[in-house]
Amino acid sequence: MRLATRANGKPDGELLVVSADGTRCLAAGPQLPNLLSAIEDWASAQPQLEALAVQLEDGAGERLDEATLAAPMPRSWQWLDGSAFQTHADLMQIAFDTEPLNPVRPLMYQGMSDRFLGPREDVAFLDEAGGIDFEGEFGVIVDAVPMGVSPAEAMQHIRLVVQINDWSLRAYAVPEMHTGFGFILAKPACSVAPIAVTPDELGASWQDGRVCLDLQIDWNDERFGSANGREMSVGFHELVAHAATTRDLVAGTMIGSGTVANRDYAEVGSSCISERRAIEIIANGKPDTGFMHFGDTVRMEACTAEGASPFGAIDQRVVARQA
Amino acid sequence: MRLATRANGKPDGELLVVSADGTRCLAAGPQLPNLLSAIEDWASAQPQLEALAVQLEDGAGERLDEATLAAPMPRSWQWLDGSAFQTHADLMQIAFDTEPLNPVRPLMYQGMSDRFLGPREDVAFLDEAGGIDFEGEFGVIVDAVPMGVSPAEAMQHIRLVVQINDWSLRAYAVPEMHTGFGFILAKPACSVAPIAVTPDELGASWQDGRVCLDLQIDWNDERFGSANGREMSVGFHELVAHAATTRDLVAGTMIGSGTVANRDYAEVGSSCISERRAIEIIANGKPDTGFMHFGDTVRMEACTAEGASPFGAIDQRVVARQA
Repeated sequence: MRLATRANGKPDGELLVVSADGTRCLAAGPQLPNLLSAIEDWASAQPQLEALAVQLEDGAGERLDEATLAAPMPRSWQWLDGSAFQTHADLMQIAFDTEPLNPVRPLMYQGMSDRFLGPREDVAFLDEAGGIDFEGEFGVIVDAVPMGVSPAEAMQHIRLVVQINDWSLRAYAVPEMHTGFGFILAKPACSVAPIAVTPDELGASWQDGRVCLDLQIDWNDERFGSANGREMSVGFHELVAHAATTRDLVAGTMIGSGTVANRDYAEVGSSCISERRAIEIIANGKPDTGFMHFGDTVRMEACTAEGASPFGAIDQRVVARQA
Repeated sequence: MRLATRANGKPDGELLVVSADGTRCLAAGPQLPNLLSAIEDWASAQPQLEALAVQLEDGAGERLDEATLAAPMPRSWQWLDGSAFQTHADLMQIAFDTEPLNPVRPLMYQGMSDRFLGPREDVAFLDEAGGIDFEGEFGVIVDAVPMGVSPAEAMQHIRLVVQINDWSLRAYAVPEMHTGFGFILAKPACSVAPIAVTPDELGASWQDGRVCLDLQIDWNDERFGSANGREMSVGFHELVAHAATTRDLVAGTMIGSGTVANRDYAEVGSSCISERRAIEIIANGKPDTGFMHFGDTVRMEACTAEGASPFGAIDQRVVARQA
């Protein structure tokens, strides 16, 4: 099943079910006004949404206008971002010149969840000096998860899979890491690709809690990376169980993989600029690639071997925030 | 003005205006069903709530039953906790045996905001081995704050002041700090004292964005500390401006002071166990005080010199979470 959200002037938007070919949609209706309310009562919502998906495959629905789509869940009570790709963690240690991180636990910070930007929304920053960087990630949305679940139990709470651009301001990242308190200034609002899918929709590309798809990233219309999500050192179910060690996870909690990265980065490229800079430091002793400028664009799309695009594309421009 | 929230089975509860003497209340009514909705439209809500406060002083209203009160804002989109008391930061460095922290910026992490516990609610943990600790703090609730505000501008967005117990699990804190990513396991849900007050309600006790009140803390009915909030190295307006450096702050964002601590800790005691342990390490080379056990209670109340209690009391018991 594929879900999206139409911007309607309300903070949570209007929930849509999208046809398998991505061309048509049906509004979920007043009983399921938005994705957050649906995920809060998923046992009841899921069959209603599946019934609409059947109607769509029977030809019902209206044309889906991608330009009207917000993030599939425009806000949530909780966003926890992991860093589960060991290749990325190793390279970032070089980029940031930091100590080796504790390898025992999955890394995770809590980020801003009151607003997720839509897939085509301009992304506004006050200045370029922050070191504007994209981070291509996958993520999951869970229903209510009780404290202390096992990874196997956590897997049953993964209701939707999403694709995320976790915008980062690198100039703030290292000083904030040095505090030990995590990221506030370095992590403004994320963007989310238009379609949230149930794990079954990914077929063989959903394996052991990992999204085994290439994440194609283009910066200013040039291919920057196409790393595959399969190399997570822990699966999403393990990230969910980790997050729930000492807290109940509220329904609608979104949990991210961290930047997608592969061991053969020389071949597939990177999913963020900072990681490419680390690779340049390894090769040349110094970074060559600068961060983003106002007017730059970034496009992210995860594609199957057959060319299908389960999450749709993030395609955004970085702009100067008006005072 | 003094506001509280009555538990009514809904996640946000029912907003109440409380009389100056704390004995009576009036429901804010269906136009202002809860505090989060009021803070989202404060310009409209404030005069309506003030009119109810006038009615209360004229004798209207019903008896306030403290046992029915939830946290004044039972959930929010964002909770950012600072660490603004230098004495506490210095002592925690000894307790945790960590490096001196970057002194340039106020320390801040993003914590769990989907649930704030009520002032008399039992606080459940899976086991005692987490190192259960309380942290007495003050906090503020802001309306919508645009990215890039100055501290002076930020001051105008501070609408309410609260008193918080930021529950901490110390066994997780140091490993999580070492990741640089901040606290997930070490920081479960906070508790909040029953009354949220407008800054003017604090009179001379609100100075330069600081709550200049003694925070009296009793652990198992013995006085543990009564540090005063005036020694924040930066005021709340500066914490708000810091938080808003690269993000718009959503209305209802709650920002904490961090553990209240004073230079004369030998006299006034501490607001968390971990800090007392640091003082013991300085004195004796090792900590003597253990963390909390199931069945333990903690009471926190901020009192004026005249004995008034603007926030009311947090009075809770730690219990074992049922599987």
